[in-house]
Amino acid sequence: MTTESIITRMSKAARVASSKMAVCPSQKKDEALAAIADALLQKDSYIKEENQKDLRHALETGMSKPMLDRLTITDQTILSMGNGLKAVAGFPDPIGSIVKAWRRPNGLEVSKVRIPIGVIGIIYESRPNVTIDSAGLCLKAGNAVILRGGSEAHHSNQALSSIIGDALTKTGLPPEAVQVIPIRDRSAVDFLLHQDESIDLIIPRGGEGLIRFVVEHSKIPVLKHYKGVCHVYVDSDADLKMAEEICFNAKVQRPGVCNAMETLLVHQAVAGIFLPEMSQRFSKAGVEIRGCPETCRILPKATPAIEADWPAEYLDLILAVKIVSGMDEAITHIRTYGSQHTDAVITSDYQRSRRFVREVDSSVVLVNASTRFNDGGELGLGAEIGVSTSKLHAFGPMGVEELTTTKFVVFGDGQIRT
Amino acid sequence: MTTESIITRMSKAARVASSKMAVCPSQKKDEALAAIADALLQKDSYIKEENQKDLRHALETGMSKPMLDRLTITDQTILSMGNGLKAVAGFPDPIGSIVKAWRRPNGLEVSKVRIPIGVIGIIYESRPNVTIDSAGLCLKAGNAVILRGGSEAHHSNQALSSIIGDALTKTGLPPEAVQVIPIRDRSAVDFLLHQDESIDLIIPRGGEGLIRFVVEHSKIPVLKHYKGVCHVYVDSDADLKMAEEICFNAKVQRPGVCNAMETLLVHQAVAGIFLPEMSQRFSKAGVEIRGCPETCRILPKATPAIEADWPAEYLDLILAVKIVSGMDEAITHIRTYGSQHTDAVITSDYQRSRRFVREVDSSVVLVNASTRFNDGGELGLGAEIGVSTSKLHAFGPMGVEELTTTKFVVFGDGQIRT
Repeated sequence: MTTESIITRMSKAARVASSKMAVCPSQKKDEALAAIADALLQKDSYIKEENQKDLRHALETGMSKPMLDRLTITDQTILSMGNGLKAVAGFPDPIGSIVKAWRRPNGLEVSKVRIPIGVIGIIYESRPNVTIDSAGLCLKAGNAVILRGGSEAHHSNQALSSIIGDALTKTGLPPEAVQVIPIRDRSAVDFLLHQDESIDLIIPRGGEGLIRFVVEHSKIPVLKHYKGVCHVYVDSDADLKMAEEICFNAKVQRPGVCNAMETLLVHQAVAGIFLPEMSQRFSKAGVEIRGCPETCRILPKATPAIEADWPAEYLDLILAVKIVSGMDEAITHIRTYGSQHTDAVITSDYQRSRRFVREVDSSVVLVNASTRFNDGGELGLGAEIGVSTSKLHAFGPMGVEELTTTKFVVFGDGQIRT
Repeated sequence: MTTESIITRMSKAARVASSKMAVCPSQKKDEALAAIADALLQKDSYIKEENQKDLRHALETGMSKPMLDRLTITDQTILSMGNGLKAVAGFPDPIGSIVKAWRRPNGLEVSKVRIPIGVIGIIYESRPNVTIDSAGLCLKAGNAVILRGGSEAHHSNQALSSIIGDALTKTGLPPEAVQVIPIRDRSAVDFLLHQDESIDLIIPRGGEGLIRFVVEHSKIPVLKHYKGVCHVYVDSDADLKMAEEICFNAKVQRPGVCNAMETLLVHQAVAGIFLPEMSQRFSKAGVEIRGCPETCRILPKATPAIEADWPAEYLDLILAVKIVSGMDEAITHIRTYGSQHTDAVITSDYQRSRRFVREVDSSVVLVNASTRFNDGGELGLGAEIGVSTSKLHAFGPMGVEELTTTKFVVFGDGQIRT
């Protein structure tokens, strides 16, 4: 069979499975999640053996240490995948919930009822635990899912796939509700992105290159974010001790993720006091500062920033710093160079806190808290399947509810339109 | 200036205007809507003069009578455009409303707050009142909008555009919040569909050809429906008198619209009683029936249906009729040939009414009511900008709320992530 016919067949099978999933009782879905979690623990040696095949191949091809870490499945990884599934099983089932209901003057009773999206395609890179996490969230929301992991995790993902399939069958759910594409070739992705008759939504997870490729080639709607150029603005009325803790956390706690701070904006009235102390702390943590001319006057060791620094997503221990004349300039800077991902203000001024929240057009806007909180788990969505910075359907972290939609249900007694 | 540079300039101006609209107080938006409504009445002769230019040109090029009707602006059209705007002004403002709010264990207060989508592009065909209706809904939801009407309504739309622009300026709102593309050439649409840096959403309104063109060429997310192949299923336990009234209404009241019934499914147990009477009534109204073999046995005058009749959207006094063995076959038929637009069941059986509602995967599912109720106004959304049959963002009729999205707002007291 050709790659195209395999992908088409998988997509059609997913569409059929999605009809069954859509009417699957909550208890059955939760049982399936628990069965997958149990099977992961029981088949831990098999998973690690298959993962070893990927790791050996990765070593031979000279994969970098951080990439190898992401690819490795340990006992801890297996445990946390299982716990993640059990947590998702414990969430309330969003499907069938009545979002809103009202009665029309003619007696029609109208409601908006939550339903699954249908078939979701997820395209991701090296971390094989995404296979389990995504499958769990999609199943909980009553969807079928087609997963396409990185070719470097081929054996690991196939092993996880067979475990999921067995557990679904054992629970009486269609195994086609979760399918992992077995083809390493990139053309499989191309064909997948053209199955708009069978697939309702594509979610790419990975680097900007992967995401741009998906957006460019997809005939199916895509939910994604390209990058997170996150700002913290330290206002003139900020509690500077609090500002220091938040800025340090936002930059240093995990610099390689999309919700880490990339640019620090400081009000000119406090820059002279705030920046020297802040930069000492950053310096000890190995953070390189790239500053505007004024910043460089205050911090002579800082590297002068160039234009390319303002829209940069470093994902590293590098920070752009700009001194601004106030809220106007801060908001304009964020509008010009930001990525509508996550932006925070540190202030003790009531009016300005409200203005920042109103005028900054990002998926998560924070007052006096770290940008690192843009995360489905941290914000209380339970778990997340990614972050969206496009405004359609979902804007911000996406949890189980964002994998659903609503339909209108109308009960009447013979009403006709006049 | 080239077409491309005009479209790019308009899109960028809309993006700038959208920032102002996003923070515009409710009262100001409502004032602007009222000012446009008043100006329409004051400048009625100017509007009708410009409309005459379009009509003269349309007559010369031999436009059909129904198309000419759609193009014509009468005193009544102007009155109802104005009343429509005033009704929209009276709706509650969705922007800034807090959809949901909760507190995290660490004290963070998280809320989802309704915000405008940003810039919306609307591409439509001959009816010039769409210019006013769409502008009104987009402004109410705090968006900027770029409108591209059919070239046959060029003068009418330019006249309406200048009236809207004047009214916005007079109210102190940016006139770039509503722009009508002044270029007749179709290349303008192509350029518009590539402004993904400035435009957030495209809504095409018109025939399937226009919509497929837009979906094919757009780099911007599109909300649309291709067609409405709507079904009514008359179950074995239906109140047949009610069924007759609903089926007649669904087919005959306005056959040229997307929520009219195109296929009637009848349970075999009642077909022999129901169809002869129903077909007499249809026959008097000029409805041609295309039936399955069993239907043709009961109604010898019916045209035998061919495979192409089942997925057909006639938009005319033609009806496909199929006799089915029960709910299973009815649902399978709808899944196979339907367009996920609008489907209704007529039944007096409680369990089957619930099953139909649960298993039919359409944007509006009705029990004992006409398919003609799939309409934003009729369902109580106030007004509608179209119907979506894709599941992302909106599924079903789209009102003001569907022209908005939400962002997360987080208030903290210095929280950092550990």
